[in-house]
Amino acid sequence: MKIISDRENLFNALQVVQRAVSVKNPLPILSGIKFEAEDDRLFLTATDLEMGIRCSITAEVLQPGAAVLPARYITELIRKLPDQPFLIESDQDTGHVTIRYASSEASMNCFQADEYPEFPVPEGKIEFTVPADTVREVIRQVIFAVGSDENRPVFTGVLFEVREGQVQVVATDTHRLAWRKFDLEERISGADINLIIPGRSLNELARIAGGQDGRVKVTAAESQVLFTVGETSLITRLIGGNFPNYRQVIPQEFVSRIRAKTKDLAEATERASLLSKDGAPAVRLDAGGNVMVVTANSEVGRVREELAVQQEGEPVQIAFNARYLSDVLKVVGSEEIDIEFTGPLSPGVIRPVGSTDYLSLLLPVRLRD
Amino acid sequence: MKIISDRENLFNALQVVQRAVSVKNPLPILSGIKFEAEDDRLFLTATDLEMGIRCSITAEVLQPGAAVLPARYITELIRKLPDQPFLIESDQDTGHVTIRYASSEASMNCFQADEYPEFPVPEGKIEFTVPADTVREVIRQVIFAVGSDENRPVFTGVLFEVREGQVQVVATDTHRLAWRKFDLEERISGADINLIIPGRSLNELARIAGGQDGRVKVTAAESQVLFTVGETSLITRLIGGNFPNYRQVIPQEFVSRIRAKTKDLAEATERASLLSKDGAPAVRLDAGGNVMVVTANSEVGRVREELAVQQEGEPVQIAFNARYLSDVLKVVGSEEIDIEFTGPLSPGVIRPVGSTDYLSLLLPVRLRD
Repeated sequence: MKIISDRENLFNALQVVQRAVSVKNPLPILSGIKFEAEDDRLFLTATDLEMGIRCSITAEVLQPGAAVLPARYITELIRKLPDQPFLIESDQDTGHVTIRYASSEASMNCFQADEYPEFPVPEGKIEFTVPADTVREVIRQVIFAVGSDENRPVFTGVLFEVREGQVQVVATDTHRLAWRKFDLEERISGADINLIIPGRSLNELARIAGGQDGRVKVTAAESQVLFTVGETSLITRLIGGNFPNYRQVIPQEFVSRIRAKTKDLAEATERASLLSKDGAPAVRLDAGGNVMVVTANSEVGRVREELAVQQEGEPVQIAFNARYLSDVLKVVGSEEIDIEFTGPLSPGVIRPVGSTDYLSLLLPVRLRD
Repeated sequence: MKIISDRENLFNALQVVQRAVSVKNPLPILSGIKFEAEDDRLFLTATDLEMGIRCSITAEVLQPGAAVLPARYITELIRKLPDQPFLIESDQDTGHVTIRYASSEASMNCFQADEYPEFPVPEGKIEFTVPADTVREVIRQVIFAVGSDENRPVFTGVLFEVREGQVQVVATDTHRLAWRKFDLEERISGADINLIIPGRSLNELARIAGGQDGRVKVTAAESQVLFTVGETSLITRLIGGNFPNYRQVIPQEFVSRIRAKTKDLAEATERASLLSKDGAPAVRLDAGGNVMVVTANSEVGRVREELAVQQEGEPVQIAFNARYLSDVLKVVGSEEIDIEFTGPLSPGVIRPVGSTDYLSLLLPVRLRD
């Protein structure tokens, strides 16, 4: 391999792919990024075997070839190079790659490219495209509800239920749940599929889609899904197992409903959580007569906030985990929200006013007085 | 105490004083910030008994008084308040302080103000003023050389030798040394004094001076020094003991001298240090015939940089700790530097070209080949 590249292009691409570099994998070669040069393009690939990211940039290819460079060192070196074209050359015999710039050079011991795991491209069982900004928004609205317990893998993923013209997206850690639906612009024939995608891969996808206009192409198979946006691809394994039947936990009725300004409640919750207990930061909501009182207390002190709301049905007395409530209010995306209650021990359902595409459900915490 | 304040003023002042709040002091009251209201001003004080910061803002004082509020909670609460005036009121009987905003309120359990340690104001043995930007620059140019070994306290401080019209400032961790001198605009009569000021206090002073124009007033006594800039004061204890005689370790002659562009050498050193050993990041300098070669190597790879320099005297072969060399090059402040050598095992002396006010000395590391 022998190529001429420039700093900004290569550095940007390295930053994208290095997110898939494995920091704790016992396989040393996975600490590297695979460089492949052919046809005036340089392809960069990294994978931790669960997720892989591939990105390509234009480069002057003097000699095609491949090498696996230590991710941390090559990224930092390229960041610090002078802003002028430089040469990257691999030596098959020694296993070194040398970067030449001005009258200086750096060389690194590399891994053999043919020992690097293949970047598998799923045989497309189903394909569709989604605008990049929709991908970003959908992920943002559900990702906070993903669980972190590796012993219960389905909860560490997000369910995508693809049904012809529509996708329903659900995440839950069993204490809270976030649900979003969106329509596909293309009809997909005979293509019902459930994908449970690891939360971590979706975080990376949101980051990649964040820098892009245009559309994300989704190619899904039984055990993998490939996302392609611009010159970047992300492939991730799917989580096996059955996602719980989330429909049955979403209450269809309510005995009370409160309509509040999202920003007011978000700020009150933030302040209240300051003076709630560190380990179990509960805020209490008491609503009646179109006033909602938000309170929290701990050994440090107490907060009592009054908000103007619109209330329907019975008075409400309930408590939520303050952080969980904050998480929803940050992403709900509407000026006003409805919170529906069926009782102090039943989940509250938060919906944006003016949209039926989103909801989030929160289990209450027990009131102690 | 009963006052009306506004968010921005109070939050800015809290951020300044909370830097002196003790996070690990066993005395619980030191986790608080003392509020004192009198004469249409609110005074805030924090101290960890080594260093204290005091700041005042205008406020509408409805009732004078004092209370010690938990630093972490009051700062975060004020940060999150709506941007409108609010009331702070203390209740002597319960020990609570209540903050009222809009139709909401937060109250906190506070410490008794009369149990808070006094903020001592040194009897001025000597007083002078220095422009705030000089204070910032001087601290920045020497602070990196301060040691961190608490068993050798004088090295954790910076020596200020005040001699009538001039101050010499020195820091060393015994591996490197930084020296700076500056002239005072006022003559101080009969006022020779040596102050060893804790590095941590100087870091805070630089931060405080950073936001200010004008001058810093210095009031020094035997065991304490007080800095006042604008509405903020910082008091710090001095470190006892004798600072080593630094003059005798600064070589007065050299056998070789290299003149290099600061930026070129800084960037080469940064890149080289990437591929130097993690624990002992050495870069080697080889100069002869107006070219200097900077090299480093580790198990990961090697860097070889060539720089155009002007060389006087014998060829040079020497190695320095890469991080120490980088530290100096970041603060030396001139486009070009001279490095003076007296041999591969003797310290190198780095001086800005065009100024005799600064130097830094670096012990070499042993070359292994």
